[in-house]
Amino acid sequence: MRKINIGMIGAGFMGKAHSLSMAAMPMFFWPAPAIPVRKVVCDLTMEAAEQAALRLGFEKYTDNWRDVVNDPEIDVIDIVTPNNSHAEIAIAAAKAGKHVICEKPLASTLEESKQMLDAVTAAGVKHMVAFNYRRTPAVALAKKYIEEGAIGQILNFRGTYLQDWSADPNSPLSWRFQKALSGSGALGDIGTHVIDFARYLVGEIAEVMAETKTWITERPVQAFGVDKLGTVKLDEQAEKRPVDVDDEFMSLLRFENGAIGSIEATRNGWGRNNFLTFEIHGTKGSLYFNYENRDELQVCFADDPADRRGYRTVYTGPATPYGEALWPIPALGIGYGETKIIEMHDFIQSIVEGREISPSFNDGYRIAQISEAILRSAEQQKWTKVDLI
Amino acid sequence: MRKINIGMIGAGFMGKAHSLSMAAMPMFFWPAPAIPVRKVVCDLTMEAAEQAALRLGFEKYTDNWRDVVNDPEIDVIDIVTPNNSHAEIAIAAAKAGKHVICEKPLASTLEESKQMLDAVTAAGVKHMVAFNYRRTPAVALAKKYIEEGAIGQILNFRGTYLQDWSADPNSPLSWRFQKALSGSGALGDIGTHVIDFARYLVGEIAEVMAETKTWITERPVQAFGVDKLGTVKLDEQAEKRPVDVDDEFMSLLRFENGAIGSIEATRNGWGRNNFLTFEIHGTKGSLYFNYENRDELQVCFADDPADRRGYRTVYTGPATPYGEALWPIPALGIGYGETKIIEMHDFIQSIVEGREISPSFNDGYRIAQISEAILRSAEQQKWTKVDLI
Amino acid sequence: MRKINIGMIGAGFMGKAHSLSMAAMPMFFWPAPAIPVRKVVCDLTMEAAEQAALRLGFEKYTDNWRDVVNDPEIDVIDIVTPNNSHAEIAIAAAKAGKHVICEKPLASTLEESKQMLDAVTAAGVKHMVAFNYRRTPAVALAKKYIEEGAIGQILNFRGTYLQDWSADPNSPLSWRFQKALSGSGALGDIGTHVIDFARYLVGEIAEVMAETKTWITERPVQAFGVDKLGTVKLDEQAEKRPVDVDDEFMSLLRFENGAIGSIEATRNGWGRNNFLTFEIHGTKGSLYFNYENRDELQVCFADDPADRRGYRTVYTGPATPYGEALWPIPALGIGYGETKIIEMHDFIQSIVEGREISPSFNDGYRIAQISEAILRSAEQQKWTKVDLI
Amino acid sequence: MRKINIGMIGAGFMGKAHSLSMAAMPMFFWPAPAIPVRKVVCDLTMEAAEQAALRLGFEKYTDNWRDVVNDPEIDVIDIVTPNNSHAEIAIAAAKAGKHVICEKPLASTLEESKQMLDAVTAAGVKHMVAFNYRRTPAVALAKKYIEEGAIGQILNFRGTYLQDWSADPNSPLSWRFQKALSGSGALGDIGTHVIDFARYLVGEIAEVMAETKTWITERPVQAFGVDKLGTVKLDEQAEKRPVDVDDEFMSLLRFENGAIGSIEATRNGWGRNNFLTFEIHGTKGSLYFNYENRDELQVCFADDPADRRGYRTVYTGPATPYGEALWPIPALGIGYGETKIIEMHDFIQSIVEGREISPSFNDGYRIAQISEAILRSAEQQKWTKVDLI
Repeated sequence: MRKINIGMIGAGFMGKAHSLSMAAMPMFFWPAPAIPVRKVVCDLTMEAAEQAALRLGFEKYTDNWRDVVNDPEIDVIDIVTPNNSHAEIAIAAAKAGKHVICEKPLASTLEESKQMLDAVTAAGVKHMVAFNYRRTPAVALAKKYIEEGAIGQILNFRGTYLQDWSADPNSPLSWRFQKALSGSGALGDIGTHVIDFARYLVGEIAEVMAETKTWITERPVQAFGVDKLGTVKLDEQAEKRPVDVDDEFMSLLRFENGAIGSIEATRNGWGRNNFLTFEIHGTKGSLYFNYENRDELQVCFADDPADRRGYRTVYTGPATPYGEALWPIPALGIGYGETKIIEMHDFIQSIVEGREISPSFNDGYRIAQISEAILRSAEQQKWTKVDLI
Repeated sequence: MRKINIGMIGAGFMGKAHSLSMAAMPMFFWPAPAIPVRKVVCDLTMEAAEQAALRLGFEKYTDNWRDVVNDPEIDVIDIVTPNNSHAEIAIAAAKAGKHVICEKPLASTLEESKQMLDAVTAAGVKHMVAFNYRRTPAVALAKKYIEEGAIGQILNFRGTYLQDWSADPNSPLSWRFQKALSGSGALGDIGTHVIDFARYLVGEIAEVMAETKTWITERPVQAFGVDKLGTVKLDEQAEKRPVDVDDEFMSLLRFENGAIGSIEATRNGWGRNNFLTFEIHGTKGSLYFNYENRDELQVCFADDPADRRGYRTVYTGPATPYGEALWPIPALGIGYGETKIIEMHDFIQSIVEGREISPSFNDGYRIAQISEAILRSAEQQKWTKVDLI
Repeated sequence: MRKINIGMIGAGFMGKAHSLSMAAMPMFFWPAPAIPVRKVVCDLTMEAAEQAALRLGFEKYTDNWRDVVNDPEIDVIDIVTPNNSHAEIAIAAAKAGKHVICEKPLASTLEESKQMLDAVTAAGVKHMVAFNYRRTPAVALAKKYIEEGAIGQILNFRGTYLQDWSADPNSPLSWRFQKALSGSGALGDIGTHVIDFARYLVGEIAEVMAETKTWITERPVQAFGVDKLGTVKLDEQAEKRPVDVDDEFMSLLRFENGAIGSIEATRNGWGRNNFLTFEIHGTKGSLYFNYENRDELQVCFADDPADRRGYRTVYTGPATPYGEALWPIPALGIGYGETKIIEMHDFIQSIVEGREISPSFNDGYRIAQISEAILRSAEQQKWTKVDLI
Repeated sequence: MRKINIGMIGAGFMGKAHSLSMAAMPMFFWPAPAIPVRKVVCDLTMEAAEQAALRLGFEKYTDNWRDVVNDPEIDVIDIVTPNNSHAEIAIAAAKAGKHVICEKPLASTLEESKQMLDAVTAAGVKHMVAFNYRRTPAVALAKKYIEEGAIGQILNFRGTYLQDWSADPNSPLSWRFQKALSGSGALGDIGTHVIDFARYLVGEIAEVMAETKTWITERPVQAFGVDKLGTVKLDEQAEKRPVDVDDEFMSLLRFENGAIGSIEATRNGWGRNNFLTFEIHGTKGSLYFNYENRDELQVCFADDPADRRGYRTVYTGPATPYGEALWPIPALGIGYGETKIIEMHDFIQSIVEGREISPSFNDGYRIAQISEAILRSAEQQKWTKVDLI
C-alpha cells in the first residue's frame, strides 16, 4: 500500500488536529487511498520540535522549515502556522514540487493568496485550504440534498459564526488580534468558514455590502507567542496593546444565481461557543445547521402533507455522506477530529487519483477576494463587486 | 368600577384577538384599571356584523363605521381592518375625541401614518399601535434585563421573522399581497414587528441598508375579500394577478447608540411558522428569544463562572413581568391571546391614568419611516438615514 | 342561537381558566354549538363572589352553591373547587338534572369518584372531567396519527410530569399538600394528567407497579386558604405542619394491549415548570410531546428513507385538529387558555348533540382506580391489577 | 518517556475506537503519563489480522490471542471481542501478569464476570471495563457538580438509552441478539451504560424492579459473523432465527442512599439514535444530559433568583473536566473518539501511577449483578435486592 510522507510546519492547536487526522485516517477510511506517514514536524525551536514529534507521533523533527520543504522524502507539506507565514512556506513547497495543504485563511493578505495560488498552479501540485467545517457530515448532507434538488431553487442563505472565547477584554492579545500576523480578525478567522459554506452550498458570491466593528480595542500582551485562545489568565497589570482587526462583521450578499444572503461573525457573543450556522430557504424546502449540534441536519420538505410537515432532525450516520467510514450508528458522535480526518482523506485521495480537490487554493483565493470586498465595502459603505477586487 | 366602551371596526382574525383581549382582561388583571365593554362592532354588511356581534360578544353592531366613531357612548375606537383603511378611521375617531388603538402597521403609506399621528396628537386622545409581540412576557423580561444593565452595553441586534404560510405560490392573493391595500409586504406585515423589537430593546435606529425581493410574483385571485391566510385551497384554474409587494427583505442597521444590527423577514421560509426571533450581544451577556417557543427567554450572563456559564432557559411566570396577572406557574402556556390581553390592559390603563403608552402612534410613525427608509435603501442601494425620510 | 346557562362553583385559578373558556369559545368555534352564558358564580363569601362576578364576567353571584345547583335557569354546573368538595356538589347537581363539568381529579377519594359517576349516570346528564391537556392540539394530533396507524403497533409509553413550583420547602402548605383536602399529592394533581394521556393514546392500563415518596415532609401554614401555588412568600417564623401526600411517584405500567410503560411525576424537579411529556414508540414510528413546547409535536416515521429520517417538528395550526377554530397560522401560540376553550366547546357540543364526551366521569373514575392501584402497589411493593381495585 | 506496549484482541468497531485512542492519547494529554504503543493486534485469520495491523497502525499481528497474552513485550491486553470471549482472554491475561482493559459489558454471564474480577485481583494487575460514556466531559462535569454539592441531596435519577439501528425486523441477527454470544440484549449492550451512569453519579443501587420485552422475536441470519449493526441490507429470502435476548427493559431503582430512580433502554425507538440521557433532581438543583448533544450539560441551580432561574446550557471546554487536554474552545466538538481517548489516558495513567481506576472490573461485576437482578426481577415480578444475587 502506497505511503505518503508528510512534513508538517507548525505544532499548535492545528498541528494536533492534523496529526490526529493522519493517524486516524486509515482507521476510518479503509481501504485507504494511501497511508499518510507523519515523517517530520517543524517547530520554532529544536526543543519544542522534539516534544512535538514525540507528542504528535512524527518520526523526525526540525526547527528549519526549509529543510522540510527541500527534503526529497517528503510528498506533502502541511502548513499549520499563523496566517502571515503561509505564503512563504507554501510557495517554497510548491516550487519544490510538494503537494500543499494549508490552514485557513489562505494567507494574511490578498496578494499573498494570489501568489500562493499562482505557485501551486505553476508547479502542478495538488493543493487544499483547510476549511474543514464543510466536511462535517451534516454539511455534506445539506450539499447532497441541494444537488438532488430536494429543496428546489435556493432563494436565500443566512450564515453566522458567533463565539465568545475572546469576549472578555482581558483575554490575551494573541496573533489572531494583530493585523500584521493574521491579516484580519473575526472575518478571516471565522467569517471565512461562513463564506466557504455560502459558496459551497449556494454558489458564487457576486457582491457584498458590509459593516465591520472592533469593539474591544486593546488587549493585554502575553509574554510569549503561543496561541492559547481564551484560556490564559493574565496578570491584571499586563501591558495592553491595540487590537487592529475587526471583532465583528455583518454583510449582505448577492449570489450570481440571484439568491440573496446575510452573513455575520462576532467574537463577542457571550454564550455562543462555536455557533457556526446556516439557514437556507428554497422553493421546495429549507435547511438549518448549527455546528454546536453538528451530528444533525435540520431539513423541511415543502411537499410533505401540511399535517406532517416540519423540520426533520436527521442525524448523520452510515446512510449519509462519509458515514460508512465513520461510526457504525448515528449520534455516536461527530467531533472536530472527524472533520479533519475526512479532510485529510479527501486530500490524500486527490493526490493518489490526480484530481483537484475543493476547497483548493482557487477557493482560498476567491474567499480572500470576498473578504477583501467585505472590508472595502465597509470602508466605502457601498455594495462591492467581488470581481472588481 | 369604571367601564370603558369600545367600538371595534373590523371583525376578522384581529377582531377575534381583540375581542378575546377585552373579555379576558379583567379575568387576568384584577383589580382592573377599568372594565372594557364590547359595545359595538362594525363589519362590511349588516349580516356579517350581526354574526360578529354574536360571535365576539358585542352588544350592538353596524355596517357603518362612522356611526361608531360618532357614537357618544363610545370611549375607544379599536381598528382591526386592512391597512389601507386605518388612516381614515383613526383620523375621524381622533377628531371625535375617541382614544384609538390600531392594528399594525400604522397605515399603508408613510403620509397616512403622519396624518394619523398628527390627528391623535391634536385631539389629545390616547393612542396605541398594536405591535403586540413586545408584550410577550419573555420579551418584557428581556427589556427588564437590559434596563437593569444585566447584559451591559449592547453591541448588536439581529432579528428575524420567518414564515411559510404563503410560501406556496398557489396560496391566494389576499390583501396582504396588494400594495394598494397593504402598503408593503413582508416588511410591513411582519418586518415591522422586528423593527419594533429593535427599537424597544436597543434604541433608536439611525440608518438602514437593505435588500428586498419578491420571489412569488403572482398569485391566484380569491373570489371574496376575506383574509384566510394560507389555508384556502383554490381552484387550479383560478386567475392569477401580480403581487406588487416584497416577500423578503434583509437590512443592516445602525443604531443611534452605536450598536449595529441586522434584520430580515421572509414569507418563503418553509418550516418556519412564526419564527420571530432576536439575539442581542452585550458586553456583559446575551439574549435570545424565539416566539415559536415564547414561554421562554434565553439569557447568558458573562460573569457566571466559566464552568457554569451558558444560556439559561428562563420560563416566564409569576416572577417575571406581567406574571402575577397571567397563570400561576411558568409554562402553563403563553399564547397569542395573552399578548393581546396584556396589550389591552396596558392601553386601558393608559387611558385611566392619563399617560402615554408605548408603542404609540409616535412609534408607529417612526416604524413607518424606518420601513420607508428600508425600501428606499433597497432601491437606491445605499445606506439611508431615517431622519431624512 | 341556543344559549346554555352556566353556574360556576369556585373562583380561583381554575375559575379564571373556565370563565375565559366560556367567554372565548364562540369567538373561536363558529358557528358555535351554543353560546355559553356566564350566569352565576359562587364563592366562599358574598364579597368574594361579587368581586368574582365582576372580574370573571358573570351576571349573578352567590355564596351558596346549593342555590346554584337548584336554580332552574342553570343548565350546567361547573365545579372548580378543591378536590374534597367535588363529590357533594356534583352529586347534588346531577340529582338536580344539571350537566356537570368538574375539574380533575374527579374527587379526593375513590369512593367519592364512584358515587359521582353513579349519580351522573343515574341522572342521565352529560358529564366531563377536565383533563384539559389532552385537548392541546399537538396531543390531539398524536391521537390522530395513532388512529391512522401512522406509527404502527404501540410498543411502549413513557410519560412524565415534572414541576418545581413547590420544590422550595418554604412554599406554603396549600390544600394541595393535605390529604383531607386533596386526596393525594403529585399523583392526583399532576400524575393523573399523565395517566389520562396514557389511556387516551395507548389504551386501558391493566396493571401498575409503583414507588412513591414524600421528600418535603412539612411546610409552613398559610394564614388563609387561597391557593397561590408557589408564589406566596411566607414569614420564616411561620408554623409548619406535616405534608401527608406524595410529592413524587414512579410507576411501571402494563397496558391491556400488551404495551408497557413508565410514568412519573414530581414536584421537586428544579428547572422543570410544566414538563408534561410523553414518548411513544411504535413499530412504524415514534412520537414525542412536551407541554412546555406545546405548539409542536415531534414525530418520526420509520418508512422515511434513512438519509431523510428523523423526528419532524410539526407545529399545530389550521391543518391539524381544532386548527380551523384557533389561530390562522401555526405557532401564533397555543396557551393554557386554548386547551380550556376547546374543552368547553367539546363539552357544550356534547350537550347540544346528546353525545357522551371523553374524558367523562367514567374516565375520571377509572383514573381514580389507577391512582388507587398506584398507591396500593407502592405500599404493597407489588404489581397491582387495576380491575381488582 | 515510558512506553506501554499494547496487545489488542479483536479488530471490529471497538478495535477501531481503541486504536484511535492509543494513537491520539499523547496528542491530547501532554505530557502523557506514558506513550501507548500499538504493538500487536489479533484477529480471527492471519489475513484479517494483517489488514487490521495496517489499518489500525499496529506493528505486528497474529491470529492467536494466546500468543499475545504470553508475549513478554506486552504490558496491556485490550479486549474488544464479542462478550462471550471476554472471560477466557482476560483471565489468561491476568495470569500472565498483564494489565487488562475490556470492552463492556464485562462478560456474557455473571459467573464469568466474577471469575474475571477474581483473576485480576489475584494477579494484582490494573483493570478497567470500558464504560466510556461516563468520560464524556459533560458527564464528568455533572459528577463534579454533584461532588461540590451544587445540586444538593439527590432525590431521583432517570436514565434512558434509546436506539433504532435495529428497530427494523429485517436488520441482521448479529451476535448482539444471541444469548450465547452476548449474554443479554438491550440490557447488557446499552442498558449497562445507564446503570454505570446511575452508580457513578448517584451511588450504589440496592434494589431493582423491572420489566423486559423482546418485541422482535426473529431476525435474518447473516452469512458471516461480522457485526455491521443496522447497516447491512439482507436478502429478503434470508433464513430467520430466533432472537433470545431482550430488546427493551424498564426498571425502577432504589439507591442505597435513599434516592429512587427509573432506567430504561430500547432498541425499537425510531428516531432515537444514541439517546443516552439522564435527569437528576436534587434539593438544590437539577441536571440533564443527552449524549446526542454531548458537548453540553444542562444544569439548573435552585438558588438563582426566580426571574433568572432556568436550565443553563453549559458547553464543555477548557474550563471543565478534561478540557485542557481536548480542544481549545467549547463546542469545537466532542465525539465518540474523545471519550475513548480520555478512557485510554486514564487507564494508562492508573498503570503508571499504580492506582486503581474506575470503572474497574469491580464495577463491571457489580453492574453484572445489577443486570442479573433486573432479569430476575422481571421474571419473578418483584423487587430484587442486588446484594442477594
